[in-house]
Amino acid sequence: MQNLRNLTYGIVGLGLMGGSLAKAIRENILGVPGASGSIVGFDINEASLAAARAEHVLDGVYTTSNVDEMLTRCDFVYICLYPHATVDFLQKHKESFKSGAIISDISGVKSLIFDDLKSLVRPDIDYIPGHPMAGSEREGYAMSSGKVFKNHNYILMPLPTSKTEDVELFKALITELGFTRIVETDARVHDHKIAFTSQLCHVIASALVDSAEDTAVTAFGGGSFEDLTRIAMINAPLWTELFLSNKKELLSHIERFEQSLGKLKRFIEGGNATELESCLELVRTKRESMSRIDIKA
Amino acid sequence: MQNLRNLTYGIVGLGLMGGSLAKAIRENILGVPGASGSIVGFDINEASLAAARAEHVLDGVYTTSNVDEMLTRCDFVYICLYPHATVDFLQKHKESFKSGAIISDISGVKSLIFDDLKSLVRPDIDYIPGHPMAGSEREGYAMSSGKVFKNHNYILMPLPTSKTEDVELFKALITELGFTRIVETDARVHDHKIAFTSQLCHVIASALVDSAEDTAVTAFGGGSFEDLTRIAMINAPLWTELFLSNKKELLSHIERFEQSLGKLKRFIEGGNATELESCLELVRTKRESMSRIDIKA
Repeated sequence: MQNLRNLTYGIVGLGLMGGSLAKAIRENILGVPGASGSIVGFDINEASLAAARAEHVLDGVYTTSNVDEMLTRCDFVYICLYPHATVDFLQKHKESFKSGAIISDISGVKSLIFDDLKSLVRPDIDYIPGHPMAGSEREGYAMSSGKVFKNHNYILMPLPTSKTEDVELFKALITELGFTRIVETDARVHDHKIAFTSQLCHVIASALVDSAEDTAVTAFGGGSFEDLTRIAMINAPLWTELFLSNKKELLSHIERFEQSLGKLKRFIEGGNATELESCLELVRTKRESMSRIDIKA
Repeated sequence: MQNLRNLTYGIVGLGLMGGSLAKAIRENILGVPGASGSIVGFDINEASLAAARAEHVLDGVYTTSNVDEMLTRCDFVYICLYPHATVDFLQKHKESFKSGAIISDISGVKSLIFDDLKSLVRPDIDYIPGHPMAGSEREGYAMSSGKVFKNHNYILMPLPTSKTEDVELFKALITELGFTRIVETDARVHDHKIAFTSQLCHVIASALVDSAEDTAVTAFGGGSFEDLTRIAMINAPLWTELFLSNKKELLSHIERFEQSLGKLKRFIEGGNATELESCLELVRTKRESMSRIDIKA
């Protein structure tokens, strides 16, 4: 197996996630004595590249004119773009990747990549899709941090054709980045589960803020509304794309949620204390059994 | 105006909130040099009383047999019971309160107290309802803490008959407890606003947990689901009472939320990217303007 400390890493897209991954690789993998690897990055935003260079996060920076040159050098390429931009990038630069390279992406929806994988990725490339389950309501390289992955989950979707040694190398990388649990699954299960744990939560938070009568209402709050709606400070273009790219799965979860909400509403409307209380007891027990595998540090 | 450090405080109900208030009074008001006041407490749970006595949180403890004796001594009585139990306690012990005492409660629903105030409270008592907007998914005296009020909101509902000096004394107390904002309003507005910031959030969190397919789903989470559902570790009997006691207001907020959710769902169903994105942009702006008055430290 190759040594993580000697690889050349390429980050495509130096936003919040790309920047955070770059910083974590720099701090945890290349920052140790004896490491001979390097990390380079591409973005269309030159200010982000300049900042990453000045902070010694990146050893080399590339723009649209020479990104293909960058790709030929990289042993591991992390594509940190929006879902459709990820597909476009793969397609456009298909021939430029170094033979034998490992490529991964961070897209929150996978089916649109998997559906057309053969036309997007050459057979001599080991494409291993993944989804780092960490984020922030903030955006951009300036808000990135190498510490945000600590104790978080990583969903990994190796293909039947993925080489065992490459998957093992990737897992070692993920662990070094700070993630504590790697869940292996496929794109279909990923898109179904994520539609619940991530997308449905963002839809609910957004609907809750939308339904607020006025913005002064937090003066009457004790923290619950704040906790439920922090993620409503949403990156609108990104989440529009995520919601629509995973429409079928998301709609099925919204409908299940509407049914649960409707049930509670009926108990309240009917003044049905006994059924309401036993439903809430079940909810508490269910949530408590979940919190044992909570990712919070 | 009386001096907060020389009063006798009575805590009725030594659960999470009563215990936390007792500890905050002990630490912030009676714990300073020169304070000559005291704090006494009543509960039906003798273990809680014994713990509070052993920890020097309470100077005296009372049970059902002698709580009336306690009430005759207290300048300030904090009733920290469930809503209906608060009404029952006021009614049952009406004649025992010290003349001129200030009484308050922490009930999360106010109309059921206000509706019958004249029959519950003697005219020589200054009853000033309030609602400390702080809590926890934990329960009981053992989980209480004098620090939980720091930077939180307090909703105060003085009556037209409340004496100005008593209201000022109460506000000074609230500030010493750690609260940083006091919102003055009436019971009707309180119940309407709280139905949104607190009760609706608990209904949504509960419905979200109820709608989860299985308890292993958090393995696929990045923290959003955890943030939205922490409050679903709910005290079922208390929240059943709160939901049903404020049914009309809560149902109107649930319906507004359902409409907002339905709107987002239609945009997603219809693949309407433009409208979905502009709705999410508005949500973000609205939530950001709220976060400026966020209570988080």
